Amino acid sequence: MIIVTTETATADDIDRIRERVEAAGLRTHISRGETHTVIGCIGEEDRLADVPLRSLPGVARVLPVMKPFKLASLSFAAGPTRIPLGGTEIGGEEIVVMAGPCSVEGADMLRSTARAVADEGARALRGGAFKPRTSPYSFRGLGEEGLELLARTRSESGLPVVTEVMDTRQVELVAGHADVLQVGARNMQNFALLSEVGRVRRPVLLKRGMSATLKDLLLAAEYVMNQGNPHVILCERGIRTFEDATRNTFDVSAIPVLKAETHLPVMADPSHAGGRADLVGPLSRAALAAGADGLMVEVHPDPPTALSDGDQSLTFQQFRTLMADLAPFARAAGRRMPVGPPATAEVRSPAG
Amino acid sequence: MIIVTTETATADDIDRIRERVEAAGLRTHISRGETHTVIGCIGEEDRLADVPLRSLPGVARVLPVMKPFKLASLSFAAGPTRIPLGGTEIGGEEIVVMAGPCSVEGADMLRSTARAVADEGARALRGGAFKPRTSPYSFRGLGEEGLELLARTRSESGLPVVTEVMDTRQVELVAGHADVLQVGARNMQNFALLSEVGRVRRPVLLKRGMSATLKDLLLAAEYVMNQGNPHVILCERGIRTFEDATRNTFDVSAIPVLKAETHLPVMADPSHAGGRADLVGPLSRAALAAGADGLMVEVHPDPPTALSDGDQSLTFQQFRTLMADLAPFARAAGRRMPVGPPATAEVRSPAG
Amino acid sequence: MIIVTTETATADDIDRIRERVEAAGLRTHISRGETHTVIGCIGEEDRLADVPLRSLPGVARVLPVMKPFKLASLSFAAGPTRIPLGGTEIGGEEIVVMAGPCSVEGADMLRSTARAVADEGARALRGGAFKPRTSPYSFRGLGEEGLELLARTRSESGLPVVTEVMDTRQVELVAGHADVLQVGARNMQNFALLSEVGRVRRPVLLKRGMSATLKDLLLAAEYVMNQGNPHVILCERGIRTFEDATRNTFDVSAIPVLKAETHLPVMADPSHAGGRADLVGPLSRAALAAGADGLMVEVHPDPPTALSDGDQSLTFQQFRTLMADLAPFARAAGRRMPVGPPATAEVRSPAG
Amino acid sequence: MIIVTTETATADDIDRIRERVEAAGLRTHISRGETHTVIGCIGEEDRLADVPLRSLPGVARVLPVMKPFKLASLSFAAGPTRIPLGGTEIGGEEIVVMAGPCSVEGADMLRSTARAVADEGARALRGGAFKPRTSPYSFRGLGEEGLELLARTRSESGLPVVTEVMDTRQVELVAGHADVLQVGARNMQNFALLSEVGRVRRPVLLKRGMSATLKDLLLAAEYVMNQGNPHVILCERGIRTFEDATRNTFDVSAIPVLKAETHLPVMADPSHAGGRADLVGPLSRAALAAGADGLMVEVHPDPPTALSDGDQSLTFQQFRTLMADLAPFARAAGRRMPVGPPATAEVRSPAG
Repeated sequence: MIIVTTETATADDIDRIRERVEAAGLRTHISRGETHTVIGCIGEEDRLADVPLRSLPGVARVLPVMKPFKLASLSFAAGPTRIPLGGTEIGGEEIVVMAGPCSVEGADMLRSTARAVADEGARALRGGAFKPRTSPYSFRGLGEEGLELLARTRSESGLPVVTEVMDTRQVELVAGHADVLQVGARNMQNFALLSEVGRVRRPVLLKRGMSATLKDLLLAAEYVMNQGNPHVILCERGIRTFEDATRNTFDVSAIPVLKAETHLPVMADPSHAGGRADLVGPLSRAALAAGADGLMVEVHPDPPTALSDGDQSLTFQQFRTLMADLAPFARAAGRRMPVGPPATAEVRSPAG
Repeated sequence: MIIVTTETATADDIDRIRERVEAAGLRTHISRGETHTVIGCIGEEDRLADVPLRSLPGVARVLPVMKPFKLASLSFAAGPTRIPLGGTEIGGEEIVVMAGPCSVEGADMLRSTARAVADEGARALRGGAFKPRTSPYSFRGLGEEGLELLARTRSESGLPVVTEVMDTRQVELVAGHADVLQVGARNMQNFALLSEVGRVRRPVLLKRGMSATLKDLLLAAEYVMNQGNPHVILCERGIRTFEDATRNTFDVSAIPVLKAETHLPVMADPSHAGGRADLVGPLSRAALAAGADGLMVEVHPDPPTALSDGDQSLTFQQFRTLMADLAPFARAAGRRMPVGPPATAEVRSPAG
Repeated sequence: MIIVTTETATADDIDRIRERVEAAGLRTHISRGETHTVIGCIGEEDRLADVPLRSLPGVARVLPVMKPFKLASLSFAAGPTRIPLGGTEIGGEEIVVMAGPCSVEGADMLRSTARAVADEGARALRGGAFKPRTSPYSFRGLGEEGLELLARTRSESGLPVVTEVMDTRQVELVAGHADVLQVGARNMQNFALLSEVGRVRRPVLLKRGMSATLKDLLLAAEYVMNQGNPHVILCERGIRTFEDATRNTFDVSAIPVLKAETHLPVMADPSHAGGRADLVGPLSRAALAAGADGLMVEVHPDPPTALSDGDQSLTFQQFRTLMADLAPFARAAGRRMPVGPPATAEVRSPAG
Repeated sequence: MIIVTTETATADDIDRIRERVEAAGLRTHISRGETHTVIGCIGEEDRLADVPLRSLPGVARVLPVMKPFKLASLSFAAGPTRIPLGGTEIGGEEIVVMAGPCSVEGADMLRSTARAVADEGARALRGGAFKPRTSPYSFRGLGEEGLELLARTRSESGLPVVTEVMDTRQVELVAGHADVLQVGARNMQNFALLSEVGRVRRPVLLKRGMSATLKDLLLAAEYVMNQGNPHVILCERGIRTFEDATRNTFDVSAIPVLKAETHLPVMADPSHAGGRADLVGPLSRAALAAGADGLMVEVHPDPPTALSDGDQSLTFQQFRTLMADLAPFARAAGRRMPVGPPATAEVRSPAG
């Protein structure tokens, strides 16, 4: 932490600032400039995190020096984290595509979607049982029945299951049915939920909040990791800006910036980012080109009848085209797209 | 709902769009322009809310006509909602100021703060027992002990208590100790929590999310009201923008815009909006001038030692000055500031 | 300037950074922390403004300490700047309201508007002769004819004239007809124009750009002042955010933040900020409550027939109500609203 | 245009709205819903662009149906516009990379940079002679001398020259030296400048403003085209958001969205978007993957000594690596990167 004083700070002010910093267990180092004095604070900076230094007389600015996250930081791990999922790894050489409907609407549509996406190389099935909807009058998912359909479809298709959990009371239930727990953008700073998913032994797919900085996202991951769960997958899904041609603004820079800060794998959700089926292709290509480890794509047997997010869902045929189109981009990025369905019996039961 | 076709939409496309709308139980009305056809949909528009019309061939744009919220809308109620609190009402002639520390740090600081703010006309005591903090390494509140301190301070000071609830599992606990349940900005779209606070008989103070539109905020209120709780207080606390001179950008327009859309009372939180003690005065004045029904202000016996948000907390003396300064602005707005402590024994026990 | 090194910076890296800073004429002061070294740079910081320190090996962060603006900064002047206009001063005790049509549409509408607003206490006439329009197919003003109408109306009404200049080639022409030159939001970083209006002897009303930080705004003012023109009036008119209920988001905090940074007067434009006639009242009241020195308000004899911005223009009757409503807020803020037309013959000819 | 009435609109209100629309030369079509009446306006919608319909009694919402731009719209042209430059075309199969220093700092650095980038496949030399700088105290370019150095370097290197013009008075001068006129982000809505560059016979590289929607960008292009210049190249360079890890937020979706709206070529500027040399690679790859026609990249012989934007400039070696890395991404996108220097004598003199 570096503290810069005002031009009018007195020697007494500076003494008091020093005392306050030293009381928190850090050492200080004073450097007097022509107009300002700079007080360097040496030691564990997070001891100062809650000290309201700005409210002390004579303080003009407080500049943190250290990153506020630790477990998630690049220097914490020996190399990139690889998270096993079914027979593949997120963060490995293979690009992991998680595909499926926005909401689980029934057994048949889920089964046919799982088969279709598995055939094209998807390595996980996504599908919402509990849906966060802006309006209470929208379809909010099948709930527990949806979870059971997902679990059943996993054993048939060989695809591990990713689904959202929205309530601390349901973490155990969802973890009993799913392979990866998703924390949605609207809950990225639901700290009670973050702590709770930090206590289960399932990877957590953490979506960036609509107005979360990348620092906020990494701190949210830190909440999960801090409870003992090291398997956090970060996911860029677009942020809220003034531009209204797209549902959100896909912040493609987030991918390389995160890669420079953390050892955790980074995925992208081109469906929610653009909100339009015609943008899923270009945004998926851009995400791979920027270094993403995987994609989360909405696919539906018949998008015009989908109960949620139909506007951004791909048909089976569109998904097939997407996967074929992506192959040369994955190769250009030094990665590869999986081909065909996953090897059988690779799926570990979440109960196991 | 109005559907505008593309220039190249065929008669078949238009037929299919019509069928889809009529299948949802609405009537259609076709109007052919020179380049586009416009399909008006007559009937209950929310039946179309989840129909992905944009994914149908020939659809260029879908324009909703109706407001998506009902219970919260101005036309739903005969007049402005007034929510009783202690001996006053939120949304009445009196400006209700809720003041207190960011976090409950102990019995003494809470008691002295309660007394100080009550003496100056505050009509509720705010204070966090469970604190949402961006970093897991920050002070996260005293938890249940904090709730007990709040409840005890209420009986001593005569001030009803407002405190945040962050977890569905704690709603009952918090409702047993507090008079008003606060849902924080980060949980504004935690729909599980919104539903849960909709089931208790305590007013809910709902803070606007950092990237929530006013429509999103009203839909969040609708979630609470839809569960049977009509007592929602909306609170503008700043949104996230590119400007970094302030912690958030206080959207003062939100106050008159909300007043034109809803019968619910609207408060402002100048402490979190600006993030600086020196801005609390100007932003409070602006909020009253724009029509706010109340203010939520952070006050601490000694801000430089506060465990959270000390930079934006007022001292007792600064709070006194604030309340005096606000009086003529309240009068100019046709309202009045309460003077002196609340009449005794007005506080209804939350258990009652 | 403070330079923080990376954890892996070598002694050589640090030497090279030091040399680079010292080559720019500053002294350095090294402070070694546990993981990072901090290099304080002592001397004239703007000599380092263009040195790409971040590109040097071993540099993690560069933290400026000084404000980048000088002439505009609070400490540069002995007190608040007051800019004479007609018989009043901007930045004095009186709230200066500049009112008139968005565009000058003709002689009669201009004359009747001038008379109407003067009668209610406006102290300047606004009106666009050259209009910046998002679409080339919109009405773009009467040009030079508009300027002449403005000048003629000044001599009849006693109201000094404020009008926009958009082109460096027209600065002299506009300055020959108007009393205050307005630089619009879209040209706030048109540096050629800023320099040019810095060379004339007319006050400049500088509107904040839609995505300009307050620091950017003050640097734009610095461009004008740097050319010798000390009379810059800053104007908050809303910024662009995700919220679409209003045309722009009126950043009311800008007013007190600017007052804490600069001696220049600060006005507000509630018409463009909200984009809706019904918001002009609440936003005007909020602006005065937050400390604004004046307001810029669009008024039109018949808004539904206005050639531009009719949706946000007030009728004469609405303007009368506004001015009456504002009086108690001005008083509460320690200011006063002018009453009735300006004393005659106070207007200095711009040619003089 | 579609007009939706309020629930309380009277028959008289509706008659008046109709009259107003018909007076502008359009026909109306009335459709009565259960709560609202919808008035379709048939005919040339831009005749209504300036009619303040929202200010008429009974009007709740006004919904435009047509796109506000014409010359720039996809349907206006038979196919994608290809703009000849040197021996290549922007918008053709070849990816056109424009590279060079942020500012022209002298003859030697310009010559060596031109040679280095030409050797790696750049097809134009970028370099600023007039620099828009946020602070008046920053280096603002060599001006006319810089233009002359650019022109001289063109004849030596065979690379056509792209440089910014900031002032209407300098358009002719710059057009006399450069092959492509750049309009910078801060001048994207400098309508006087847009009109002026619309009158010269040089392609215009139009950078998106920091808070410009894509619609605003296309309307700015329309300003240029409307004056007779059909050769506009659009350039995404990042928008301003709350995220501060990057200089701007690179809106990669802009590329496919623009491609779906306009026939004009679309480039990307990864240097300004990210503001960091380490992000130029990932953002360039993402831009090509999303369909960009070209890139604008800052290259400097020695970034740590650059007079502007050194933090985001590549060294010659980094540029070589970039171009090699991009080749497989260009191929994956169905395009190709040029190899080696341009064929000689291809450069048309701008005077010609």
